[in-house]
Amino acid sequence: MKRNLLLVIVLAVVSASAQQRNNTVPSFTGAVEDFKPNATNQPGRQYPMVNSQGAVRVQLRAPGATSVQLDLGRRYEMVKDERGVWTATSAPQDVGFHYYQLIVDGTPMPDPGTVSFFGAGRWGSGIEIPSADMDFWQVKNVPQGRVVEQYYWSKATESMRHCYVYLPAEYDKNPNKKYPVLYLQHGNAENEYGWSVQGHAGQIMDNLIAEKKAVPFLIVMDYGQGQNIHLKGQYAPQQAQQDSRNNDAFQVVLLTDIIPMVEREYRVIADAQHRGMAGLSMGGGQTRRITLANPKTFAYVGMFSGGTISPDDVNAADGFKSTNKLVFMSCGSKENPRVMEAAENLRKAGLNATGYVSEGTAHEWHTWRRSLYQFAQLIFK
Amino acid sequence: MKRNLLLVIVLAVVSASAQQRNNTVPSFTGAVEDFKPNATNQPGRQYPMVNSQGAVRVQLRAPGATSVQLDLGRRYEMVKDERGVWTATSAPQDVGFHYYQLIVDGTPMPDPGTVSFFGAGRWGSGIEIPSADMDFWQVKNVPQGRVVEQYYWSKATESMRHCYVYLPAEYDKNPNKKYPVLYLQHGNAENEYGWSVQGHAGQIMDNLIAEKKAVPFLIVMDYGQGQNIHLKGQYAPQQAQQDSRNNDAFQVVLLTDIIPMVEREYRVIADAQHRGMAGLSMGGGQTRRITLANPKTFAYVGMFSGGTISPDDVNAADGFKSTNKLVFMSCGSKENPRVMEAAENLRKAGLNATGYVSEGTAHEWHTWRRSLYQFAQLIFK
Repeated sequence: MKRNLLLVIVLAVVSASAQQRNNTVPSFTGAVEDFKPNATNQPGRQYPMVNSQGAVRVQLRAPGATSVQLDLGRRYEMVKDERGVWTATSAPQDVGFHYYQLIVDGTPMPDPGTVSFFGAGRWGSGIEIPSADMDFWQVKNVPQGRVVEQYYWSKATESMRHCYVYLPAEYDKNPNKKYPVLYLQHGNAENEYGWSVQGHAGQIMDNLIAEKKAVPFLIVMDYGQGQNIHLKGQYAPQQAQQDSRNNDAFQVVLLTDIIPMVEREYRVIADAQHRGMAGLSMGGGQTRRITLANPKTFAYVGMFSGGTISPDDVNAADGFKSTNKLVFMSCGSKENPRVMEAAENLRKAGLNATGYVSEGTAHEWHTWRRSLYQFAQLIFK
Repeated sequence: MKRNLLLVIVLAVVSASAQQRNNTVPSFTGAVEDFKPNATNQPGRQYPMVNSQGAVRVQLRAPGATSVQLDLGRRYEMVKDERGVWTATSAPQDVGFHYYQLIVDGTPMPDPGTVSFFGAGRWGSGIEIPSADMDFWQVKNVPQGRVVEQYYWSKATESMRHCYVYLPAEYDKNPNKKYPVLYLQHGNAENEYGWSVQGHAGQIMDNLIAEKKAVPFLIVMDYGQGQNIHLKGQYAPQQAQQDSRNNDAFQVVLLTDIIPMVEREYRVIADAQHRGMAGLSMGGGQTRRITLANPKTFAYVGMFSGGTISPDDVNAADGFKSTNKLVFMSCGSKENPRVMEAAENLRKAGLNATGYVSEGTAHEWHTWRRSLYQFAQLIFK
């Protein structure tokens, strides 16, 4: 008995010190047992699961491993059963989409249960915590737009690039009609798939258009990670002019290649009043830089968790105020929501500005889906 | 000295027995040191690498792991350096695309260095061994077709499904022209992404059309893994009629939903003479079953590493011979190439049949890219 107690104490100390060392916590013990397979699981996979509280339960078969953790922002120690299957249950999570990974003997790896998403600079796992408002981005039996993979020659990089283009359902049925176009950018360490895959931009638009809450427009989604965009020849920047992410590289490609390609290959109205730019996080910062630096090019500006524009910024950008139809600034309520104040300041300065705060979410995709849902209803009208 | 020798012997025995146990081999020692990053690496990643012999070198940082292997069909023991980085070099591989994985302390995981591909029933890693003929599937600065993601309502499954549709470059520019269409299926444990991503079907077609070696046609690529297609209501099969993969389920969806949707949503010529079906491996088997069971529906039949059709099969399928314009059967030279004999037998029976053997490749994507390249030049002419 004494010996068993000692063993328990020793194990508890060892376990606590291991958790301390790795900054891990044990499984959440208050979970309601109504777990269901995650919405983005691969066909036939039961795990990961999510319950009605938004707790996540993962499993991994790894009989040869000596430690496995669930890394969902916080790290949870997974526990091995006699079959070599490791399990952990997280505390309840915010609604929406979260990137996560498993850590096997110290090595991060994707959970083989889910499909793959590009975030944090690599293809990895994702979990979807259902939200009360998730209906707006579901695939529904409404007229379906199409997301197109478009390759094009880039003069600025002297290479073939590709982007994704959302075409509203009616596009093919109106061969003489021209449409407005929104250039919509991903965040840092994400890529051109993000808005279609994690963001469900196509479904958000199809559903809004079906309900006549948004006018039909095109969305162009390209790869904007500056340090991986290598400009050539006359476009190659002086090293000294580059910031660490080389944000200017995306501006060059957007203005030199992407917009001209879109206006050549698709039926879009090629003027500022029918051209918008928006982005999330880094993409919101790029939107801010690019629209202020090209004040007569875009009438609609959306920054989702991507900073704010001030009256001083506007005053320094000659032509911005007379061209602009809307500055939209949003973020999650768990971020620093100065967007409402920033919008108020812009309105006082005579601009049409809207702030939006996504309730109960942080710097994550559900904030940005909701932001697109709001922004899309306000533009090109 | 004696002690060191003993240690070496003990280590060699332990190492050999560990390799024996896991059926692993040590790194290839004859590699030429001209390794370059693999073509499908994520932006900024150096590893995996491939050399001029087709040898593959992988690295993984995993300081906490006690064993890491490269699983490329054969398993190679990876060796850890003082930084905790594990490395292995494979023997030279066949040209073309191979799925692979790393095994960390017994647990399979993707190599974080490459983008993700769906094969073997999960998203995982891929390596591209350059081939002398790889030019035919490269992205080139020629008129670009578009691969479209198309969602549609399926009556047979009572759910929204999606597929990918290749549209030739001229499709949008000829709003009154109608085109032939090829239904093209993936293999077992792959999915609807395979032909565009691993197969580069879009690039193969763009390049062939630019060189006027193929006529422009549409390609429809859907998900055909029968056991994951759940038919509902009047379409739900009797359990007794299902084979293990439930191949019939895909036939039901193809005929009930996919073909009618394509003929409604796209400008295609809706008759057998302008309709083809092809597939690789399991998809070739499905092509065989579906075209023989529906002998007046498809004039062009392609089976890539997917079996053969005999004169007896044709005789048993009333209307097949009078409708059919081409039976194309192919495989890799490292498979069992009975396709040439099978084609000869069909020709003797009065059909137009072509056999094709991909030199130096096995049951893998380069065989199937080459097969599509050949097949596409022969159809709808």
